[in-house]
Amino acid sequence: MQTFEQLLKQFEESFSNKHFPETPSTLYDPAQYILSLGGKRIRPVCVLLGNELFDTINPDSFHAATAVELFHNFSLIHDDIMDKAPLRRGMQTVHAKYGEPTALLAGDVMFVQAYIYLSKMKPEALQKVLPLFNKTAREVCEGQQLDMDFEAKEQVSFDEYLHMITLKTSVLLAGSLQLGAILGGATLGNQQYLYEFGKNLGIAFQIQDDYLDAFGDPAKFGKQVGGDILANKKTFLLIHALETANATQKQQLTELLKTNPADKVERVLSVFKEVAVDEWAMQLKNGYLEKAMKHLDDIAVISKRKEPLKELAQFLMKREY
Amino acid sequence: MQTFEQLLKQFEESFSNKHFPETPSTLYDPAQYILSLGGKRIRPVCVLLGNELFDTINPDSFHAATAVELFHNFSLIHDDIMDKAPLRRGMQTVHAKYGEPTALLAGDVMFVQAYIYLSKMKPEALQKVLPLFNKTAREVCEGQQLDMDFEAKEQVSFDEYLHMITLKTSVLLAGSLQLGAILGGATLGNQQYLYEFGKNLGIAFQIQDDYLDAFGDPAKFGKQVGGDILANKKTFLLIHALETANATQKQQLTELLKTNPADKVERVLSVFKEVAVDEWAMQLKNGYLEKAMKHLDDIAVISKRKEPLKELAQFLMKREY
Repeated sequence: MQTFEQLLKQFEESFSNKHFPETPSTLYDPAQYILSLGGKRIRPVCVLLGNELFDTINPDSFHAATAVELFHNFSLIHDDIMDKAPLRRGMQTVHAKYGEPTALLAGDVMFVQAYIYLSKMKPEALQKVLPLFNKTAREVCEGQQLDMDFEAKEQVSFDEYLHMITLKTSVLLAGSLQLGAILGGATLGNQQYLYEFGKNLGIAFQIQDDYLDAFGDPAKFGKQVGGDILANKKTFLLIHALETANATQKQQLTELLKTNPADKVERVLSVFKEVAVDEWAMQLKNGYLEKAMKHLDDIAVISKRKEPLKELAQFLMKREY
Repeated sequence: MQTFEQLLKQFEESFSNKHFPETPSTLYDPAQYILSLGGKRIRPVCVLLGNELFDTINPDSFHAATAVELFHNFSLIHDDIMDKAPLRRGMQTVHAKYGEPTALLAGDVMFVQAYIYLSKMKPEALQKVLPLFNKTAREVCEGQQLDMDFEAKEQVSFDEYLHMITLKTSVLLAGSLQLGAILGGATLGNQQYLYEFGKNLGIAFQIQDDYLDAFGDPAKFGKQVGGDILANKKTFLLIHALETANATQKQQLTELLKTNPADKVERVLSVFKEVAVDEWAMQLKNGYLEKAMKHLDDIAVISKRKEPLKELAQFLMKREY
């Protein structure tokens, strides 16, 4: 059995191979470019973690893990086009560097490449894994669409946002763990507990992400603090603040959303603190984290095997930046 | 055994089912929209034709055929975005109607849906079919990239154009036939003959398409005659004309490409006729058609079974409009 760090290292080594043919380089260089920007590789490691929770690593898990990471990068390329984002990991996005048509197509071909890796699996494994991979891919698309829909919507409820964020970010974490569990020979019950662990962990992570964007330490936080506030992004924080604010506070927030004063971040944060949205968010995060750990407890394997998954949870939750 | 028309009808019936969930309708309505615009459904019928050349229809062939048609529509949505095309089959393109971000995502989810149909196949069939489906999908992406690259290129050779058009349009026809052949239990040799039949037929069809755009009967041709000429599109005709023209003719063509006189189509056509590009194109088309029929001859099944494939060739080649 290996630690989270060991599995991460193993995946990084296998993933550093070239994933595309040489030509046409006008298509494959842009695809390889985004992979060269790095990333935490959390999702593919989840496949390996899910596998090793139940049994030694099945070589097919590396194919599934690679497919998951390629799928994730495909979705990043396309999301960046849709969001007109200029930067990704501090570097130019694919469409900013190569133009939108090529970025669109580089995303498409990366998605095909994910399925090429899946097709290398043994037939029995492929048949078990493909429906879950497809379902997850479809849900990620749905999540992105809902995210875009919400931008244009006046009001978004907590439940709507939770549903969107679950589809957009949590199901891929949960699905990756379950893919590994399937390949490790887990029972359906254990697969489902592991899926729920991943789903709740993903939500806790997203709440933390929203929190840090507003209340993170600017010195440690990689991006601009208050970026979500400046972009009027409907986050867990803003949605809850609007739902619990009194009439005056609500009017202040609504005014601030419509205008862009120089001290917008400061003033929104001040309302957030008045309605104690920071404490609420920390409690909410801890609630989802507890739920996740409860599902992990329920999995019928000896607790020693669960250590790497606890390391995963710590890794995702220790970010203060 | 069924005729081409019967198989087409069968596919149309099975394909008229809904292919997507209800919600989010902001994502799935645009996806369903392009399917409602119709289309010739040639490629999925090729799967059924390829199957029935060797054996009675395997129910998995309907899954493969549906996957092929969804893949084709996915590529149309994305190509239309890249080409900034306002119309498709006389109606608004998906991005013109719903915006680019949603069209991009509707294409993505249609692509996932193609794999959802493939995942319904029996495991042994899936394992045989998936690598070919993936390879074909990758080649179609490569073809589209080369097409975009060529737009920006000063000079494109006949061989380069042939390679691009083979990837962009012929491999899906050829691959669809082979998918069916696999599901019909064909030997590898017979699969390859059938693939080559489809590939050469596809090239013949494209030459005819280029020809009709320039020399078609405006009364019968669905779109504007001379559209390729007005768009300076590098077609079989233009490439050959530039390669065989004398110095004066070449200069005339180069001038016409740089400018947009009111009688541009007429004048380009006049040079085309001077260098007999029309006759050349007809000969070229017939050459590829003969090659296709030769490969069909080579397939080791009784000739009666090949009738529906001859009907397919006739159907594709009878277009005068």
